[in-house]
Amino acid sequence: MTTSQLTEQIRLKKSFLCIGLDVDLTKIPQHLLKEEDPIFAFNKAIIDATQHLAVAYKPNLAFYEAHGIKGFQALGKTIDYLNENYPEIFTIADAKRGDIGNTSGMYAKAFFEDLKFDSVTVAPYMGKDSVEPFLAYENKHTILLALTSNAGAYDFQTQQVEGEELYKKVIKTSKEWKNGQNLMYVIGATKTEFLQEIRKIIPESFLLVPGVGAQGGNLKEVCEFGMNRNIGLLINASRAVIYASHGADFAEAAANEAEKLQQEMASFL
Amino acid sequence: MTTSQLTEQIRLKKSFLCIGLDVDLTKIPQHLLKEEDPIFAFNKAIIDATQHLAVAYKPNLAFYEAHGIKGFQALGKTIDYLNENYPEIFTIADAKRGDIGNTSGMYAKAFFEDLKFDSVTVAPYMGKDSVEPFLAYENKHTILLALTSNAGAYDFQTQQVEGEELYKKVIKTSKEWKNGQNLMYVIGATKTEFLQEIRKIIPESFLLVPGVGAQGGNLKEVCEFGMNRNIGLLINASRAVIYASHGADFAEAAANEAEKLQQEMASFL
Repeated sequence: MTTSQLTEQIRLKKSFLCIGLDVDLTKIPQHLLKEEDPIFAFNKAIIDATQHLAVAYKPNLAFYEAHGIKGFQALGKTIDYLNENYPEIFTIADAKRGDIGNTSGMYAKAFFEDLKFDSVTVAPYMGKDSVEPFLAYENKHTILLALTSNAGAYDFQTQQVEGEELYKKVIKTSKEWKNGQNLMYVIGATKTEFLQEIRKIIPESFLLVPGVGAQGGNLKEVCEFGMNRNIGLLINASRAVIYASHGADFAEAAANEAEKLQQEMASFL
Repeated sequence: MTTSQLTEQIRLKKSFLCIGLDVDLTKIPQHLLKEEDPIFAFNKAIIDATQHLAVAYKPNLAFYEAHGIKGFQALGKTIDYLNENYPEIFTIADAKRGDIGNTSGMYAKAFFEDLKFDSVTVAPYMGKDSVEPFLAYENKHTILLALTSNAGAYDFQTQQVEGEELYKKVIKTSKEWKNGQNLMYVIGATKTEFLQEIRKIIPESFLLVPGVGAQGGNLKEVCEFGMNRNIGLLINASRAVIYASHGADFAEAAANEAEKLQQEMASFL
């Protein structure tokens, strides 16, 4: 999927909502545990109920890896289900990978070729040769961690490096890597005050913004300071949507929460 | 496994060799491709041939994830084989994970509880709350990326932050986290000139040193500047050992290469 196709979907659905599929078996409705594959059963129900309200889904790999082979199977079924039934939806493997070149190449193969995700999140700490293998894929997208939404973001990301914060150094440096102009960036919604400055460095890039909802970010401010002429935003909500209800009405409740967010988003478009 | 047990094993085997199990199906002897599980067949042969020469094995997760469920099964069989047959050997999941707290907790569960690795490599970019969930496990070990062996290490890790390199800031900051005194650190062997200074900050910590062999590090210098009273070093070799031969004699050839390294290590003990 190209970024212009993504923008087109956003305009069509009047939504730049990304739903995080962070499936925790202790939090899903307990009747699903009787299913052969409870994780996939949950995801399928959530996707079917919300696909008209969201432009992207983001399974967080940790939640699948924690269940070993069963988790891996559920992940495979989820991405296949999305690609087969809703090919217009943008898919994000939230994996935060990054390793030396030949190893990052293996991760890129895993997420882009085997699992057929549109994009993957990548950590910048190991630098250029740890990210470029992901960038080598045409019409696949690499979403680089820049400024995350957690408390630990202040440990290193906001430290001054040569007169500017590390996350800015990461953005400026990565732009210059091969195909770096295609990068997207993770920018936490809990730090909207930084968005104006980020847009000065990367006016055109898509930003994946976690932290709205459970982590306390503010949608209005993110839109005000982060939106560009191609929208350029994917706002992620995970727990606030998928765990809106723990009962039999979980999918309907998720759709209600997603619709609230979509309606709010529509007002900014 | 405790670090004192690890030191004991090092003294017993006169080796601080870690063998990286970065299994690439295009590089293993082609007759193994007829096996039901070629990756595990390769690992088992390498492990059996080298287990008296190495104190640790380090499967690199990317090489398993790149094969989907089959890769995950091969990884599970490999760690189970190690734990059942050679419980005295230290195992490292080279995964370079790191995410917000609840997600890192899921990764910790995956590697420490389900797969039963002794340790996992973790990236520091997201700070304290992304690492502490790993540190919460007693007698499990978190190996934090500090200064890696690749070219991209110079992009951010060696940048000046408040008058010192970022990797030093990472080491100093992480030491203060809860159970931070138990951290081990990845320090690339290609950068031995930094080892003396690193030892001033963390005289007692174990260092996992990749980059000897294929990446051009120097074993003698690493020992000279990096060894402490508990040895405190695990030197990793991957491709130089496991791909010493591509023929039917691959396991024997790997053992020969491992023995060369072990003999050299013994001379420094």
